[in-house]
Amino acid sequence: MEREEAEIVTENGDAEAKKGFSDGSICGFESLHRLLQSSLSPQLFQEVSRMLLGMNCGRPLETVSLPDPAKALSSTHDFDLQAFSFRADNESLRAPRIVRVGLIQNSISLPTTAPFLDQKRAIFQKLAPIIDAAGTSGVNILCLQEAWTMPFAFCTREKKWCEFAEPVDGESTQFIQDFALKYNMVIISPILERDVKHGETLWNTAVIIGNHGNILGKHRKNHIPRVGDFNESTYYMEGNTGHPVFETAFGKIAVNICYGRHHPLNWLAFGLNGAEIVFNPSATVGELSEPMWPIEARNAAIANSYFIGSINRVGTEIFPNPFTSGDGKPQHTDFGHFYGSSHFSAPDASCTPSLSRFKDGLMISDMDLNLCRQLKDKWGFRMTARYELYAEMLANYMKPDFEPQVVTDPLLHKIP
Amino acid sequence: MEREEAEIVTENGDAEAKKGFSDGSICGFESLHRLLQSSLSPQLFQEVSRMLLGMNCGRPLETVSLPDPAKALSSTHDFDLQAFSFRADNESLRAPRIVRVGLIQNSISLPTTAPFLDQKRAIFQKLAPIIDAAGTSGVNILCLQEAWTMPFAFCTREKKWCEFAEPVDGESTQFIQDFALKYNMVIISPILERDVKHGETLWNTAVIIGNHGNILGKHRKNHIPRVGDFNESTYYMEGNTGHPVFETAFGKIAVNICYGRHHPLNWLAFGLNGAEIVFNPSATVGELSEPMWPIEARNAAIANSYFIGSINRVGTEIFPNPFTSGDGKPQHTDFGHFYGSSHFSAPDASCTPSLSRFKDGLMISDMDLNLCRQLKDKWGFRMTARYELYAEMLANYMKPDFEPQVVTDPLLHKIP
Repeated sequence: MEREEAEIVTENGDAEAKKGFSDGSICGFESLHRLLQSSLSPQLFQEVSRMLLGMNCGRPLETVSLPDPAKALSSTHDFDLQAFSFRADNESLRAPRIVRVGLIQNSISLPTTAPFLDQKRAIFQKLAPIIDAAGTSGVNILCLQEAWTMPFAFCTREKKWCEFAEPVDGESTQFIQDFALKYNMVIISPILERDVKHGETLWNTAVIIGNHGNILGKHRKNHIPRVGDFNESTYYMEGNTGHPVFETAFGKIAVNICYGRHHPLNWLAFGLNGAEIVFNPSATVGELSEPMWPIEARNAAIANSYFIGSINRVGTEIFPNPFTSGDGKPQHTDFGHFYGSSHFSAPDASCTPSLSRFKDGLMISDMDLNLCRQLKDKWGFRMTARYELYAEMLANYMKPDFEPQVVTDPLLHKIP
Repeated sequence: MEREEAEIVTENGDAEAKKGFSDGSICGFESLHRLLQSSLSPQLFQEVSRMLLGMNCGRPLETVSLPDPAKALSSTHDFDLQAFSFRADNESLRAPRIVRVGLIQNSISLPTTAPFLDQKRAIFQKLAPIIDAAGTSGVNILCLQEAWTMPFAFCTREKKWCEFAEPVDGESTQFIQDFALKYNMVIISPILERDVKHGETLWNTAVIIGNHGNILGKHRKNHIPRVGDFNESTYYMEGNTGHPVFETAFGKIAVNICYGRHHPLNWLAFGLNGAEIVFNPSATVGELSEPMWPIEARNAAIANSYFIGSINRVGTEIFPNPFTSGDGKPQHTDFGHFYGSSHFSAPDASCTPSLSRFKDGLMISDMDLNLCRQLKDKWGFRMTARYELYAEMLANYMKPDFEPQVVTDPLLHKIP
């Protein structure tokens, strides 16, 4: 689809950050936060930020200064670099548990027509300096985007893209293990997995690499979309790994892959298993989900009293052969625009601004994990949740003869 | 608490809508929507709206023109009046099912030191013209705010306020029944209920009045808060009415009272029972919940493919005797500022702007209930939900010997 660029004219210039497309479907501003920051007076912006980003321990979120080598990498390799800090209250009986967490979003590197090995290696090459920036910044836990080794080719329904699938201990994992060991960093590496021991089955999987470079485990995507061009169910099935929480050197983490973020029960299950940070590596496009993007993650962070790191890839990926996915759209060769906007949400309803909607980026945040329990103690959502009611409700719902609890007005058909 | 008012100076004036308080905790702008509308260029505002309010069937939400008598009532009685319309796609085999829905938010009318009967009757008197405005606007289903007959006195822990409790067929219900019959309107009337047949037990209850003035049923608040000054657990217990959906002449409705909005499982259960519109009559204050307010309702509307009407009372209610609720706050006589901001959320992630943060108001929206099933068909959240997994998870979680699914790094204590 070709789009004509149009500039949205504003009082105070800064047209660069506010380019738009004439069909209105994708707009060219880098992030809502930056758009508002450049358009509102500082005092108004502060008020709007309080409403949109919440307050962390009663204050606006603080930014963090990163070491010069990280900044140099960001400027040399042209990726967005932002860093914040979530505080928690001081406790009397427990020391703060501050971890530094990173999220990487990126576009692919070569056209999808290039040889597959070249495509993959070019992404390795592109990611290396961003991972280095995370490492030299002292990041403890880093998460990459969904299926980071490849274009998100699941729109095409073509099976040749399955070649990108790798076993859990494959080339991409080995690539990541080196960084994990070098930087003493836990890394979550979401890939297309080939399960050789089970008949070459494919899965959408996050591999968890421990801070000693060890493979700590894996989690397979629980919920698979069938919407728009997201023809992923052509490639892999619903995961069979439950809702594991990984106890790492830096906290208890879990991974809710992409479409699983639309399922409150999926978020809940990671919470019940004790997660303190849940990552949501995703690939999602503007027209379909952009207004939902900050809502769902923030809600899950609030409801489950844990931190969330949300990642979305960036850019528009053009495929060699046109495809259709219904909805009356003509055949096309792209998925739409992956709008980036990676960010963190906290259990106290605060969140960071988002990374660029267009550029590769590294989002870093310090977070005191003590905030999770503090919010549980404050709001008491676990205590007041009445899980027994819902265990029963769901068990009943699964019965073939389930009858909803409906009270029908006996006067329903009486004429007024 | 006394607060010093301070004006936030902006480029283009309109100071009236942007008054602030010097402690930053409560700000004087009427709504985020109006604040941005008055501060951004029309084109930028359109972009920001797309991000913040979503798109309804691919377009910005449309406003609706109301009849003159309704507008006259709004202007005579000084309440905010806004009206919008949620569209759905046309279907081939089903006619549109458009209903007009209303939400009322209001402050109390007399000081809390006035005789109780006078206080209650004064609220009746204040509400009458707002309900008339809804009726003359052709509203089909109307919802009032939580415990609308009384000040939200549950901060005080004083038991004298229990006098406001009424049986389901008490005076306030009779007052509402007249309007329901007159205007052929379903009305949800959330009150403090006195259950005379069960030993004078108190409940936080929504009474559902059918469009013939009949009492269709009731629902009792499922989740009771213990946070901040919300000492409601001193007055009533968790409800025992399950998650009923009421099949009315205008659609299937349910009520998630106040704190229940923090519980995704509560929203889910109303959805599984078939609700098309869920009302969330609330009483909540700025410092505690304002940034969470739009997040939780919108997320629930998306996740459960139904409409939500969110209502919060307005104003600051001063009580005769000071009280404390911990958190290191000195004794005080008010709950904080109830910030109004009533609004609708739709299953397609769009939402209306909010009513005033300070004034009484009536929010009206047309909604084509066909949108609910259309979104279920589009996104497939029910189909992909894997409820059997979570029924089992919750059943296990309830067992005393439940063990979370945790994978511990065997190298956890190895020095790098």
